[in-house]
Amino acid sequence: MATNKAWTLASRPTGPVTEQNFKLVESEAPRPMDGEVQVKNLWLSLDPYMRFRMDDVKSYAPSVQIGEVMVGQTAGEVVESKHPGFKAGDKVLAAGWQLYSCIKGDDLSKVPASAAPLSYYLGLLGMPGLTAYFGLKEIGVPKPGETVVVSAASGAVGGVVGQLAKIAGCRAVGIAGGKQKCDYVVKELGFDACVDYKAGNLYRDLREACPQRADVYFDNVGGEVLETMLKLMNLRSRIVVCGRIAERDEAYCHKNLGVLIGNRIKMQGMIVFDWKDRYGEGVQALAGYLAQGKLKYRESVVEGIENAPKGFIALLTGGNFGKQLVKLG
Amino acid sequence: MATNKAWTLASRPTGPVTEQNFKLVESEAPRPMDGEVQVKNLWLSLDPYMRFRMDDVKSYAPSVQIGEVMVGQTAGEVVESKHPGFKAGDKVLAAGWQLYSCIKGDDLSKVPASAAPLSYYLGLLGMPGLTAYFGLKEIGVPKPGETVVVSAASGAVGGVVGQLAKIAGCRAVGIAGGKQKCDYVVKELGFDACVDYKAGNLYRDLREACPQRADVYFDNVGGEVLETMLKLMNLRSRIVVCGRIAERDEAYCHKNLGVLIGNRIKMQGMIVFDWKDRYGEGVQALAGYLAQGKLKYRESVVEGIENAPKGFIALLTGGNFGKQLVKLG
Repeated sequence: MATNKAWTLASRPTGPVTEQNFKLVESEAPRPMDGEVQVKNLWLSLDPYMRFRMDDVKSYAPSVQIGEVMVGQTAGEVVESKHPGFKAGDKVLAAGWQLYSCIKGDDLSKVPASAAPLSYYLGLLGMPGLTAYFGLKEIGVPKPGETVVVSAASGAVGGVVGQLAKIAGCRAVGIAGGKQKCDYVVKELGFDACVDYKAGNLYRDLREACPQRADVYFDNVGGEVLETMLKLMNLRSRIVVCGRIAERDEAYCHKNLGVLIGNRIKMQGMIVFDWKDRYGEGVQALAGYLAQGKLKYRESVVEGIENAPKGFIALLTGGNFGKQLVKLG
Repeated sequence: MATNKAWTLASRPTGPVTEQNFKLVESEAPRPMDGEVQVKNLWLSLDPYMRFRMDDVKSYAPSVQIGEVMVGQTAGEVVESKHPGFKAGDKVLAAGWQLYSCIKGDDLSKVPASAAPLSYYLGLLGMPGLTAYFGLKEIGVPKPGETVVVSAASGAVGGVVGQLAKIAGCRAVGIAGGKQKCDYVVKELGFDACVDYKAGNLYRDLREACPQRADVYFDNVGGEVLETMLKLMNLRSRIVVCGRIAERDEAYCHKNLGVLIGNRIKMQGMIVFDWKDRYGEGVQALAGYLAQGKLKYRESVVEGIENAPKGFIALLTGGNFGKQLVKLG
């Protein structure tokens, strides 16, 4: 009998998330019933949206309840299948901060046979990559010669946004925390510039990095960075509202919305699910760029399920670097 | 020799606008030079945007400078023309808080021969009506059965938005200040409901007036009303960001932008100039509805140029009712 280890929500954060908000529970790994599949998870993806699911507020997706397994996407291998669509050994995307998941086959998706490592399907070729791809293409709609700015630029979504902007013939400007991340964004990912939001001169530094100001701002953080970017948006520019991790503990007080009128700015919220029926197109495009060497990608790996909360807190506080994963296998 | 009277900007407001911010200047009416036209203004339009032009901030249009004639649209009659396109007696749209304007013919537009009174070309068939028409149609994109909410609903723009929403097969909900205005919006203009923002239960009353919540919010005011509406917007709803007169003295602190993501809300700023090449289409559509009795319209008239600042302050503080005009002729 396999033993499952699962992180549950122990308490809702009242300030910054701490390890005490989670509880590790051990139990026998559940066996599949008819129509279900048992998956041994090899990788767990950690993503900013999880923070908002820890709160008891109405949103597009239900909150995690106290005592429930923390929500999250995993990549793993089928151990036992009672669903005709899957067999032992299949590589799949499953769910939960846990070693074993027992999931209805209909809710499971198979990872296509590919040259890319399995973990990439939680990042570059998974939800973060697709978020970047569809958000930029469908809401940002960048035109050659325009300036595209993206926050959390060294992260799983932001790094792809900037590289896709370069592919689209734009000037790509990143915003990240610290010199090391900014160097990576410019030297490794090939952005034209990167502004360190921790350096204390956000507006001035952005103004300098964007001589033509900004036509697209892909916002992964909200807060002061969004507020500052509002002052830099051009006529008929677009803000892709994708994340607001800077507001995880408290909503920011935005006072610059007046510019929306004068500059006819479009601000539009997005969730990658909206393009579910086009994931195939997105994965194909991203895999193509990857194969051509046009997309660089970096993972930040925490070892062992025991360290999942630590990895998550690092992600929330900017302590990670690249796509945050937990290696379970 | 005709005598001109013109209101100039005497000082920039540091709090609420007062009559002391303006100065009435008398002089000989300027005579036209080659290519110019002298216009005797009969009506002056007062509009919320003028408030923002009194500030010394960069915007889509230049600020009025101290000592300059206040910006505004007028409707009047050509007295003397030195431009081949105009002759004495032509009805035109001109500019400035003044009795006589001397303007380059190329910057002047002729009012078409029509059954509608001249003053309508400053309101229902002018910029406010066109703002409602294009903003709702092109950014709001209302579908039959949807709920359209509009603030400043008894005003020159808002009243038209709600009536166009009804024509489009939508539920139209207004927001206005006081019972008298709300009664007018429902009983005269035919909205389905109207919420009095001064009654002290804005969220609760809006929630009740919008059983299916809101699919389009046409925002003429910003501030607390926008903040409250953000909580009522449906999945894939649209906010037409048209005005922010509630923030005339101080920017509001918006903390509800987080909903943009979960509900994939589009917020887009607009100025009617963006559809300059389609004004003909808009005027034709509005005049058609007017002739069919589908558009009701009300003017709030202040008599005499001396009273322009009083009328403007009434407009800013909600003391007017319908399209605010000054009768000059």
